[in-house]
Amino acid sequence: MTREQITADIVAARLAKGLTWHQLADAIDKPVMWTIAALLGQHPVPVDCGAVVVDMLGLDESAIPVLAAVPMRGGLPTAVPTDPTIYRFYEVLQVYGGAIKEFIHEEFGDGIMSAINFSIDIQRKPHAAGDRVVVTLDGKFLPYDWTAAEG
Amino acid sequence: MTREQITADIVAARLAKGLTWHQLADAIDKPVMWTIAALLGQHPVPVDCGAVVVDMLGLDESAIPVLAAVPMRGGLPTAVPTDPTIYRFYEVLQVYGGAIKEFIHEEFGDGIMSAINFSIDIQRKPHAAGDRVVVTLDGKFLPYDWTAAEG
Amino acid sequence: MTREQITADIVAARLAKGLTWHQLADAIDKPVMWTIAALLGQHPVPVDCGAVVVDMLGLDESAIPVLAAVPMRGGLPTAVPTDPTIYRFYEVLQVYGGAIKEFIHEEFGDGIMSAINFSIDIQRKPHAAGDRVVVTLDGKFLPYDWTAAEG
Amino acid sequence: MTREQITADIVAARLAKGLTWHQLADAIDKPVMWTIAALLGQHPVPVDCGAVVVDMLGLDESAIPVLAAVPMRGGLPTAVPTDPTIYRFYEVLQVYGGAIKEFIHEEFGDGIMSAINFSIDIQRKPHAAGDRVVVTLDGKFLPYDWTAAEG
Amino acid sequence: MTREQITADIVAARLAKGLTWHQLADAIDKPVMWTIAALLGQHPVPVDCGAVVVDMLGLDESAIPVLAAVPMRGGLPTAVPTDPTIYRFYEVLQVYGGAIKEFIHEEFGDGIMSAINFSIDIQRKPHAAGDRVVVTLDGKFLPYDWTAAEG
Amino acid sequence: MTREQITADIVAARLAKGLTWHQLADAIDKPVMWTIAALLGQHPVPVDCGAVVVDMLGLDESAIPVLAAVPMRGGLPTAVPTDPTIYRFYEVLQVYGGAIKEFIHEEFGDGIMSAINFSIDIQRKPHAAGDRVVVTLDGKFLPYDWTAAEG
Amino acid sequence: MTREQITADIVAARLAKGLTWHQLADAIDKPVMWTIAALLGQHPVPVDCGAVVVDMLGLDESAIPVLAAVPMRGGLPTAVPTDPTIYRFYEVLQVYGGAIKEFIHEEFGDGIMSAINFSIDIQRKPHAAGDRVVVTLDGKFLPYDWTAAEG
Amino acid sequence: MTREQITADIVAARLAKGLTWHQLADAIDKPVMWTIAALLGQHPVPVDCGAVVVDMLGLDESAIPVLAAVPMRGGLPTAVPTDPTIYRFYEVLQVYGGAIKEFIHEEFGDGIMSAINFSIDIQRKPHAAGDRVVVTLDGKFLPYDWTAAEG
Amino acid sequence: MTREQITADIVAARLAKGLTWHQLADAIDKPVMWTIAALLGQHPVPVDCGAVVVDMLGLDESAIPVLAAVPMRGGLPTAVPTDPTIYRFYEVLQVYGGAIKEFIHEEFGDGIMSAINFSIDIQRKPHAAGDRVVVTLDGKFLPYDWTAAEG
Amino acid sequence: MTREQITADIVAARLAKGLTWHQLADAIDKPVMWTIAALLGQHPVPVDCGAVVVDMLGLDESAIPVLAAVPMRGGLPTAVPTDPTIYRFYEVLQVYGGAIKEFIHEEFGDGIMSAINFSIDIQRKPHAAGDRVVVTLDGKFLPYDWTAAEG
Repeated sequence: MTREQITADIVAARLAKGLTWHQLADAIDKPVMWTIAALLGQHPVPVDCGAVVVDMLGLDESAIPVLAAVPMRGGLPTAVPTDPTIYRFYEVLQVYGGAIKEFIHEEFGDGIMSAINFSIDIQRKPHAAGDRVVVTLDGKFLPYDWTAAEG
Repeated sequence: MTREQITADIVAARLAKGLTWHQLADAIDKPVMWTIAALLGQHPVPVDCGAVVVDMLGLDESAIPVLAAVPMRGGLPTAVPTDPTIYRFYEVLQVYGGAIKEFIHEEFGDGIMSAINFSIDIQRKPHAAGDRVVVTLDGKFLPYDWTAAEG
Repeated sequence: MTREQITADIVAARLAKGLTWHQLADAIDKPVMWTIAALLGQHPVPVDCGAVVVDMLGLDESAIPVLAAVPMRGGLPTAVPTDPTIYRFYEVLQVYGGAIKEFIHEEFGDGIMSAINFSIDIQRKPHAAGDRVVVTLDGKFLPYDWTAAEG
Repeated sequence: MTREQITADIVAARLAKGLTWHQLADAIDKPVMWTIAALLGQHPVPVDCGAVVVDMLGLDESAIPVLAAVPMRGGLPTAVPTDPTIYRFYEVLQVYGGAIKEFIHEEFGDGIMSAINFSIDIQRKPHAAGDRVVVTLDGKFLPYDWTAAEG
Repeated sequence: MTREQITADIVAARLAKGLTWHQLADAIDKPVMWTIAALLGQHPVPVDCGAVVVDMLGLDESAIPVLAAVPMRGGLPTAVPTDPTIYRFYEVLQVYGGAIKEFIHEEFGDGIMSAINFSIDIQRKPHAAGDRVVVTLDGKFLPYDWTAAEG
Repeated sequence: MTREQITADIVAARLAKGLTWHQLADAIDKPVMWTIAALLGQHPVPVDCGAVVVDMLGLDESAIPVLAAVPMRGGLPTAVPTDPTIYRFYEVLQVYGGAIKEFIHEEFGDGIMSAINFSIDIQRKPHAAGDRVVVTLDGKFLPYDWTAAEG
Repeated sequence: MTREQITADIVAARLAKGLTWHQLADAIDKPVMWTIAALLGQHPVPVDCGAVVVDMLGLDESAIPVLAAVPMRGGLPTAVPTDPTIYRFYEVLQVYGGAIKEFIHEEFGDGIMSAINFSIDIQRKPHAAGDRVVVTLDGKFLPYDWTAAEG
Repeated sequence: MTREQITADIVAARLAKGLTWHQLADAIDKPVMWTIAALLGQHPVPVDCGAVVVDMLGLDESAIPVLAAVPMRGGLPTAVPTDPTIYRFYEVLQVYGGAIKEFIHEEFGDGIMSAINFSIDIQRKPHAAGDRVVVTLDGKFLPYDWTAAEG
Repeated sequence: MTREQITADIVAARLAKGLTWHQLADAIDKPVMWTIAALLGQHPVPVDCGAVVVDMLGLDESAIPVLAAVPMRGGLPTAVPTDPTIYRFYEVLQVYGGAIKEFIHEEFGDGIMSAINFSIDIQRKPHAAGDRVVVTLDGKFLPYDWTAAEG
Repeated sequence: MTREQITADIVAARLAKGLTWHQLADAIDKPVMWTIAALLGQHPVPVDCGAVVVDMLGLDESAIPVLAAVPMRGGLPTAVPTDPTIYRFYEVLQVYGGAIKEFIHEEFGDGIMSAINFSIDIQRKPHAAGDRVVVTLDGKFLPYDWTAAEG
């Protein structure tokens, strides 16, 4: 049983059992965005959490150690996403990617926003003209630093 | 003079004159992220703002109407970005794209975060382990809606 | 059972049972273009509609919640379509895409035609030299609008 | 002087002179969508029209025969467009391409909508929730027909 | 049973039964090139022909309505073909594609050779230096024609 | 002066001087399809022919030896052509490529149609429903033959 | 049973039975390079040879007619090979492809080395600094020849 | 002056002066295939050879140190070559690449033919059915060898 | 049973049995990096080592000769890796690839670091600001050397 | 003057003046690998270093602020490098990428080697069978850490 097969089983079982992602996240006591990403095959799931997930979704217990292993990450079926909900974030990168780079360099100097020391949060926020999806990407600034191991 | 040439001239002149993006944004009284995106060729620049920019950067006045036209958007030289600062945002999409989609559908229903009725903001925020780059993507939720013109 | 497998089953069962798309659309009381797109895996199918479809096509009831979930959209097997009937619409984009963009900007200002607040209709219309396929794409104009959530 | 250079000159001169596409279309007495496509390098421009365009835009007369030649068509810089205004039409193809194909076959039989015996029109149409971009693609139905020359 | 599976079954059964394409074409009374293309999944096969094919090749009768449906066309596994026999025709396009375009425009004006109102024929023809493969592509000339439905 | 620059000059000069491809072919006493392909950079042009072309089109004499050298062939700007007139031939390959291969193998055995010992001809042929573009591809059959040099 | 499945079975059975390619080639009395290529799915295998192969490798007899059919050639899983042993030959093409072309034209005139009337041989040859892999590609020179069928 | 510009100048000057590659190779006393590859930008040209080349072709002396530097190698404009003379060698890789790999492993064990400790030679060899292009690729066998620096 | 299937079985069985890569490497007395690469399908596994692996992981003995054969190498599912842990090494190539090339040429002359006569080692090394991943790539320098077999 | 133009000027001027990378690195008192990468356009060059470089290479002083700006990184002209010296490192990634990932996870847990807090060093090291290129990649281990800004 590969991680890909387990992911497919999770996707199908969640719908069949009518469970929300929030319910799964609450059950394993993890942030919901982390939970969804992990159950879609993008993060290792600690053994105790994996046991809960396997139990709730009726999966085979042999899935637990596979879930606990670090997966091969990268969840887009094509380099440029085709799904409109996902594509808009790629479009943001096409339109604002250069500006993000320039802003980070002007504000922080040469470096990047880490995508590893990182969290992501989504909120529904009100606006007179219609509710808004507010996505917060929060990553540690990592300055380019020419360093070598000591000794 | 094409928009691409004007963008190249802006990039060069800003460095030569030692102006920050914040100074340019202040001068035209626009948000700094909007200003950088626009001056990198991703938004039309209103004529009055364009006149200020042309003056500050010492460009030819003939650039003003070209800056005011809606540009052909899309600022990445390759479909998958190679610059590390920009790549991390593509990586976020690879790792969290599926989770973003699932969260939006669970919270809002079927639809997307607009990238048109949209703003982006970046803040430097403190953390004991090092300052963080906090990027806020803020777009109107657009539900899938099968609508046609009236009459 | 994944959405892709259900789509394949729908395609096969429709042919085996000799049902037209119009018959399926009538049975669930939805526009025919919406119905075809949804049954080809591009829209969620509400539970009551899904129950009708499953019954008419002899599918397993477990397909209903999967049909009701928002699918991963994007129905072309290659980025540039190879099927001639579909390719002609890509060709329209190659030949008229720039003109569409310029027209929208001249008539409406900076913005896009929404593909979310959107409907599509096809009609057979007469002409002395042979009937015509008339496709109407009808989407809300969305102006570029730099807006943020309130509060 | 290549057609590509003339297209670039037209784009720049139109902005510099503040002419609208409608004014250019009226001047050569052609539909506006045809005019924009042609001036963006997608159709040959008849000599008399070309002479008017060259005069209005202040181009060199040597452009006239080049404008009158059938161009190498295909106006997208990348196979998948990056500009949001153009991309939405590619997205329509991803989401509704299969449905368009099925509808045409159910309604007309095996064949295609011609993109050669074809016109395109865009209208601004009202709706209580905001004006709409209504694009009409109108092409002759061409049935698959296994025919050979006579004699 | 998908069309792709039926195509694979046809390919295998034809070899197992030692039938030639000419024998299959004769049995259904269709041109041989049309027959091969159709049985390789590129054209719908009328129900009466499909019944003959299914009988000759020992396929299941449930294949008949699938064969009769218009298939998703496009038979090359890669955009640039790798098989030498097929590649030579792609090479012809690389070397003579521009010349074909120029000749058609000089002889017929602006337009295309239809690939829909079209037939293809291959003949073995003698030559002192060795027999030749003579392929005739025969398609209706379609002039670019800016036409709209009436009324 | 590279061959690419000479090709661009030929394209421009032919339009400026109002010469047809047939006139150029007659002047150098070569088949018109060969002539167009050669002048578009796909074949070497013998020195005597090159001299005639250079004279008729007003090019510099230094072009003659460059025209006489074997060029780097391959005239499509993208692997899948975007121009509709050229694309239809690629579409023929997508729809009939497999059938062409099977026919050649059934009729001739294992091998290919040469694209080197080859000629191409286009004719306008009449049909009651409209004139037809009839393209004849005529290449020597080359059987797969496992041969080595002698001695 | 497709040719691809038979190829996979041959690869597996050869290893399981511990047979060398040379033993297989000797058994069917063919050159070893031809034999390997054919058994990897790149050439048709004559019925008598196929019977020997099927017997030696313990395959099903139904494989014989499939092996005897001309296969869809092209054995690289990606356009640019990733396996180092194969990649080096692609690298040779990157570094020496232009020189090969120039040499052939200077020595033979305009034309190609046939890959159809062709054989390939590999020898282990000695050298003081280590044995060498010597690959001989031996193809008939085919001059570009504008020829048509007679009559 | 970049190496690419110098290569273009060499190509043009060689044709203008009517020099053969053999003459250039003789003048610098190097193998002709090495000479062509080097002058097409694939190898560094020693200073004394570069001086001869610059003199014979009438280039500027500043080209000598650029010619002497190790170039960025890789001379194909597209990953899959379009020129028929070069393409045939790519086709050989598609058809015989797997067999080459298997042969090398059976004869030499796990490893590769070096493309660095390597020479290439082309000969015209006779055959009753027409002269043949015989290309010899001669590279040192390099066994996979898990070795590390000493000490 | 193909090598790909065996690799998948190894990956799953290792997790199910809770074995580390170091334990597997110790059991077959090979370097750990070599062992992981080999068990992920990138190196042949000698028969005695294969027997140990098959025994430890509970695989079928028929896997041993397949493991012992030289595999088709190349372990990335996409040309540009999507997994962040792997991607960083591709990024190193984008940022430092040119510098690596220049350094090797300045220090060693024209040539390459062999990836065949090669070993790789990873160490955890301390640093006040956090432990470091230190990867050592150690390959024999191979000078470009135009050599041919003797005799 | 863009950074790309300055990079090209640096490459040309270094060769013309016969300066080594080590001399340039010594002059600006930076590690040589950092220096080469920076001068090839991959790192910003501090103003004082830029002044030295400009002086040594005879560039225009206006290059100094452009060199000091953070560049758009990514120095490979194609996604898969074609130059053999660079390609070997891509090959290492194909063959050992999976093993690197597994090793890091087994030794450090879930996370990456930073390519930002990173240095690279190359040494020539002796071996009885020939000197070796020893490349050390030294990056801080970054554990996946779901962290958000405080407050």
